[in-house]
Amino acid sequence: MKTWTIYLSGEIHTDWREQIEAGAKAANLPVAFAAPVTHHEASDDCGVAILGAEPNKFWHDHKGAQMNAIRTRTLIEGADIVVVRFGEKYKQWNAAFDAGYAAALNKPTIIMHQDEHAHALKEVDAAALAVTKTSEEVVEILRYVINGELKGYTDQQQAAE
Amino acid sequence: MKTWTIYLSGEIHTDWREQIEAGAKAANLPVAFAAPVTHHEASDDCGVAILGAEPNKFWHDHKGAQMNAIRTRTLIEGADIVVVRFGEKYKQWNAAFDAGYAAALNKPTIIMHQDEHAHALKEVDAAALAVTKTSEEVVEILRYVINGELKGYTDQQQAAE
Amino acid sequence: MKTWTIYLSGEIHTDWREQIEAGAKAANLPVAFAAPVTHHEASDDCGVAILGAEPNKFWHDHKGAQMNAIRTRTLIEGADIVVVRFGEKYKQWNAAFDAGYAAALNKPTIIMHQDEHAHALKEVDAAALAVTKTSEEVVEILRYVINGELKGYTDQQQAAE
Amino acid sequence: MKTWTIYLSGEIHTDWREQIEAGAKAANLPVAFAAPVTHHEASDDCGVAILGAEPNKFWHDHKGAQMNAIRTRTLIEGADIVVVRFGEKYKQWNAAFDAGYAAALNKPTIIMHQDEHAHALKEVDAAALAVTKTSEEVVEILRYVINGELKGYTDQQQAAE
Amino acid sequence: MKTWTIYLSGEIHTDWREQIEAGAKAANLPVAFAAPVTHHEASDDCGVAILGAEPNKFWHDHKGAQMNAIRTRTLIEGADIVVVRFGEKYKQWNAAFDAGYAAALNKPTIIMHQDEHAHALKEVDAAALAVTKTSEEVVEILRYVINGELKGYTDQQQAAE
Amino acid sequence: MKTWTIYLSGEIHTDWREQIEAGAKAANLPVAFAAPVTHHEASDDCGVAILGAEPNKFWHDHKGAQMNAIRTRTLIEGADIVVVRFGEKYKQWNAAFDAGYAAALNKPTIIMHQDEHAHALKEVDAAALAVTKTSEEVVEILRYVINGELKGYTDQQQAAE
Amino acid sequence: MKTWTIYLSGEIHTDWREQIEAGAKAANLPVAFAAPVTHHEASDDCGVAILGAEPNKFWHDHKGAQMNAIRTRTLIEGADIVVVRFGEKYKQWNAAFDAGYAAALNKPTIIMHQDEHAHALKEVDAAALAVTKTSEEVVEILRYVINGELKGYTDQQQAAE
Amino acid sequence: MKTWTIYLSGEIHTDWREQIEAGAKAANLPVAFAAPVTHHEASDDCGVAILGAEPNKFWHDHKGAQMNAIRTRTLIEGADIVVVRFGEKYKQWNAAFDAGYAAALNKPTIIMHQDEHAHALKEVDAAALAVTKTSEEVVEILRYVINGELKGYTDQQQAAE
Repeated sequence: MKTWTIYLSGEIHTDWREQIEAGAKAANLPVAFAAPVTHHEASDDCGVAILGAEPNKFWHDHKGAQMNAIRTRTLIEGADIVVVRFGEKYKQWNAAFDAGYAAALNKPTIIMHQDEHAHALKEVDAAALAVTKTSEEVVEILRYVINGELKGYTDQQQAAE
Repeated sequence: MKTWTIYLSGEIHTDWREQIEAGAKAANLPVAFAAPVTHHEASDDCGVAILGAEPNKFWHDHKGAQMNAIRTRTLIEGADIVVVRFGEKYKQWNAAFDAGYAAALNKPTIIMHQDEHAHALKEVDAAALAVTKTSEEVVEILRYVINGELKGYTDQQQAAE
Repeated sequence: MKTWTIYLSGEIHTDWREQIEAGAKAANLPVAFAAPVTHHEASDDCGVAILGAEPNKFWHDHKGAQMNAIRTRTLIEGADIVVVRFGEKYKQWNAAFDAGYAAALNKPTIIMHQDEHAHALKEVDAAALAVTKTSEEVVEILRYVINGELKGYTDQQQAAE
Repeated sequence: MKTWTIYLSGEIHTDWREQIEAGAKAANLPVAFAAPVTHHEASDDCGVAILGAEPNKFWHDHKGAQMNAIRTRTLIEGADIVVVRFGEKYKQWNAAFDAGYAAALNKPTIIMHQDEHAHALKEVDAAALAVTKTSEEVVEILRYVINGELKGYTDQQQAAE
Repeated sequence: MKTWTIYLSGEIHTDWREQIEAGAKAANLPVAFAAPVTHHEASDDCGVAILGAEPNKFWHDHKGAQMNAIRTRTLIEGADIVVVRFGEKYKQWNAAFDAGYAAALNKPTIIMHQDEHAHALKEVDAAALAVTKTSEEVVEILRYVINGELKGYTDQQQAAE
Repeated sequence: MKTWTIYLSGEIHTDWREQIEAGAKAANLPVAFAAPVTHHEASDDCGVAILGAEPNKFWHDHKGAQMNAIRTRTLIEGADIVVVRFGEKYKQWNAAFDAGYAAALNKPTIIMHQDEHAHALKEVDAAALAVTKTSEEVVEILRYVINGELKGYTDQQQAAE
Repeated sequence: MKTWTIYLSGEIHTDWREQIEAGAKAANLPVAFAAPVTHHEASDDCGVAILGAEPNKFWHDHKGAQMNAIRTRTLIEGADIVVVRFGEKYKQWNAAFDAGYAAALNKPTIIMHQDEHAHALKEVDAAALAVTKTSEEVVEILRYVINGELKGYTDQQQAAE
Repeated sequence: MKTWTIYLSGEIHTDWREQIEAGAKAANLPVAFAAPVTHHEASDDCGVAILGAEPNKFWHDHKGAQMNAIRTRTLIEGADIVVVRFGEKYKQWNAAFDAGYAAALNKPTIIMHQDEHAHALKEVDAAALAVTKTSEEVVEILRYVINGELKGYTDQQQAAE
């Protein structure tokens, strides 16, 4: 059976990734998850920590961002589905960048955000195959998309059999 | 040994998929099958069941169709061979859409339909590498294409040896 | 200035193509239109008329459909936008096939059909960037998309200047 | 001589596009510019203005964003260079989305923003071939990249000859 | 109006290319033709004539074949339609090679040969969209495919109007 | 360790495939071999045997050739290396077709033939990365390319250690 | 008639580009030439001259090299043929980089260098379709490849007619 | 868990590959390494050793370089990350060629060299996502990129938990 690879992009300050992973495990889905490095300071400083300090903040960021790109682009290109979550705070331009990157690669994308950001995210949403608010919804989508199981439908069928 | 992935697209009201799967199993073929969600109501309602109701039927359908696309496009792109069956009833435009999608990706396609639809399907057939009527024929094609076994030919060779 | 190439696929029994072309001309759009051969009998018989008769109807159709594919695939691949119209009658599987072909090539598609076919076409619509009912709407879309002109918006701006 | 196509993505509330176009014209560069529709209200409402009102704001936005995508994706794919400007205000997720889209297509990108956004844009900058602050810099880059002219270098050479 | 580029590959000892070009001109088709260098000795010796003699016949051939490939691959990749003619004599493996090259690039191909070679060419024919015997047929195909004109069909329509 | 997939195309009347497979086994190479169906009659008749007789020989061949293409194109696209052997007899246009197909996909190819065919095969050879005469040479190439072992070089190194 | 685009990469201290351009002009070839910026100091300093000084030499170089890449990658991707010349001096790693870039894009490449560098360049040469020493040879190749003219062959034919 | 494939290109006279492999093993990274054949004489002579001597040194080199290309291009195309090391000596044009090849395939690359070569390698560095000096740095990058572990950051987090 095919193992689906799901890349979880975007917001790193809440435990939405763990929720999705737990939900997928509970549902017994054949999935492997991938994500950017979510340790904020490590992600910011990886370039200079390994390759040497930069007095100029721009190159400090640049070295780190390029190093992170080794991971993120490889994993997005290898993903079957890309989920991108926009949190309540921050600019999160890297999340929108990942969504664009996935779109140009023709990857199915699922976007997560609250209603208040709907207008600002309309172009991103328009490139997505599903727009969600919660981790539970993402798990339900994965369960349906991968296993073909939909609460209130396929379970009733099984019950009836 | 390579496991061939076969995507079975199209008609969902008869048991042709089960017939092909049973035949492939009986023939011991190294194949993995993939298909759209074939539970009709689940397939129609998946979008609103998971992401919330839509008063407008068009968006009800749209949400469901996009969710199904997460599954179908991923599986078609991962398939070695795409089989598309056109049944006797309904418009089945999604089946023809899948055939076009597979053709543009240069996937070998096998089309199944009865003679009465031959003229209407001539463009679809012209893009296929085989046009068949029955599940048995599809199994025989898979058996020949994957294992190189052809009744009355390769078995006689074995008998003679 | 870029000339946009628009491929008009699908139904061949009404004058929707001429309507769009006339509308585009009236709006002075920098467009070039392309289409399949719309002479029904020529389209059916081209293969045998040029390359010799086939007693078997299947191969009669096959030869014609392959010859038409030389034209249609080349033009779809060269198009900036693909418009696919589904009429009231017939199976029109070739139209859905073209929509799938365009989708896999990541071409922006505009689908035209009446409401009664919305449910049957939901997968095709879900792959489109616009779903329309009339030639006028298609012209308005082209006018907006290509020239950035939108009635009641950009013309009022001009009037105000 | 090759005409270079430059797509100008992002912020729509200042006249940076006009500045670049004027500068390119003054420098006699063989360029053609392309851009999204920059009339804010037209861009928001195009979908419903042409294809009918939507009571639900989400679908109102969705129809418009998809229609805009017909234009923007076609033009980005046809561009030699993509310039993306992030202004001082708003989320501008569509700008970051375009940058990601261009990156996945391997298009050379030039990013414009002020220093205050440098950290938030570090992933976007890391995918760019130049990071700039002003329209003048973009014009100078185009002049160098396209015509091979660099103030203080190639002009002195000419003077010396 | 689009100019179609037609690459004429294969046999170089008869005037089939001139026949097709004359026919296309007579029919006023918007086409540009391309072909390998058809001067047999030049084609064999180009490598050593320009880059120096090779005592070993294998490298003599190799240098020439690589130089010819600069032309042929560039032109095949730029072609809308590839016509490959197999003559009565010689191995003509380069013709079959070109057909395979075009097939993998998903180019529409038209194959020309007499009946006696049909069995030996069955794999090549199976990858083609038309199989023909004469230059006249190729011209008729181009006329139909490009201009939509079919003798006995579209001309009668015009006559009736 | 990576398993290399080697596609063995071409001549089917001698046991060159078995020789290469035996040599690779003896050398303990991590390889999986793939090939067309090499049972001559099955390969010719597969189409009609499964899908029904054709009175016209051309369509008999066509049905078979298309069915074989399901296998051969899938396997060539999945191969790391394509070996194509030209025997002493027959036209073998399908072998040259496969070589062209592999070349357009940028697959490394190894061509096998005797000296007498060198001139006729010069274009095919020019697209190859190695030109060989015997199965032993092919095995030695695979051993070197995959395992980095070269008789008289790497074995002496080991002996000296 | 097709205009061929020729990218001239590599050594910038001799007038080999001008020689080729003059030769092509004298031979009346339908070609357009493209090249990197060949003003050495401008090429080194373009990044800091336009976007601001960098105290660190590495970033000084980096900004310039990225700016040059906007030009070079765009032009290599648009080229029909890539010519790469290795001079007598310097490391010239950018020339070898361009050759590798062109090879991965499947562009026909012509390599120019003197005999003394043949061994060091053997991998680069092995990816080329022609290896030359002089500008005259390159012009002769272009003349043959584009116009089909070969001294001592096609001119004698013309003389005889 | 995904196994990352790392291709180690370039300099073959020091043990940098072994250092990286040992470091990766010590860090328990899920990686598989690939490399060219690093036995210098075997790499030079493989072509003639297997396929027969060439009196002309150029063809001696050519045969070997093409045979090596069967290995190197296949492995680069299959790699997730390409590391290219430039040593202190030699021209190393094949290393720069590999870097260009990887860049055109959009592979993340890591370049290794000492400061003295920084200016000569500026174009190669500008296409890389990290520029390093030591094997230890490469291991640290792989550890961060693949496992998300960064000394002084993620280990302190674990310690604190």
